[in-house]
Amino acid sequence: MYEVELKVRADHPTVRERLDELGADHVESRRQVDTYYNAPHRVFAETDEALRIRREEPADGAAVTKLTYKGPLVERESKTREEHETVVADDDALAGILDGLGFEPAATVEKDRVFYALEGYTITLDSVAGLGEFIEIEQEADESELEAVREGAVGLLSKVGLEADEQIRTSYLGLLLAVEG
Amino acid sequence: MYEVELKVRADHPTVRERLDELGADHVESRRQVDTYYNAPHRVFAETDEALRIRREEPADGAAVTKLTYKGPLVERESKTREEHETVVADDDALAGILDGLGFEPAATVEKDRVFYALEGYTITLDSVAGLGEFIEIEQEADESELEAVREGAVGLLSKVGLEADEQIRTSYLGLLLAVEG
Repeated sequence: MYEVELKVRADHPTVRERLDELGADHVESRRQVDTYYNAPHRVFAETDEALRIRREEPADGAAVTKLTYKGPLVERESKTREEHETVVADDDALAGILDGLGFEPAATVEKDRVFYALEGYTITLDSVAGLGEFIEIEQEADESELEAVREGAVGLLSKVGLEADEQIRTSYLGLLLAVEG
Repeated sequence: MYEVELKVRADHPTVRERLDELGADHVESRRQVDTYYNAPHRVFAETDEALRIRREEPADGAAVTKLTYKGPLVERESKTREEHETVVADDDALAGILDGLGFEPAATVEKDRVFYALEGYTITLDSVAGLGEFIEIEQEADESELEAVREGAVGLLSKVGLEADEQIRTSYLGLLLAVEG
């Protein structure tokens, strides 16, 4: 499976109006605060790994903390990575464990996400602290469907009044580090 | 707070009979499988730290996985350590995260524990895979009570027919590494 993903900057009030007109379903809203860690024995930027504590607050539910490890790309074409994630009960204890082992918080990405569903795509309106407002259009696809799904995403983007050639391929973490750097 | 703890080898059937006669309350039973990890950037045996995944099955409840970090002694007298522990939802994912980061399983301690309460002490009958049967007598104490609590533990041990001068100060992990080494 491949993940087709388009991300561009977007003015949310304008986009929300268009999504309503198009009949998009609001699925859920969620606040995510991600803390990315540095390792004491590796430079993750060089090894292409990531270690993250995600604190997630659904609009209508209890906060959840997750620990995630992303390994380097194992398959370049599909951007496949080894990824392991588990829910953790006590986020302070988890931060204490990482600190004790010599891992250090490197950057925090704080965002409010509103999820919509339309024409089989997941559309996410992200407000990212320090970066601004974005829209992401996503769908999973087999290799044979890749081109069609990608064209569908471009079409959907243009229906909400945005251009695919403004596409941003850098992660929010990467954008933030560039701003701060 | 100090923890007064006495551990000796014990024949469980004999000890259980004595505990029944003394009116000890059976509190709970639990299976614990502890996997201790090595670090890629430190030798925990030298730094006096430990990183452990504990998989715990109560006799009457769902299995729970915990991640625990123990730092070096910060206070020699009371054996105080920095310790952080959290329940983790997915133990396979947790093992995958540690593996991805370069931590490796070093030793596993597998034990069945039966807990009793008697005269303010916690009495634990431990059956440890590869090591055999033990009894532990424990109670927390202020500095001023230390001597009395320690004498009480020795007295309790003698009531169940055992001698405090057979005391084992090495952890089960230490005993196992000595056996395997």
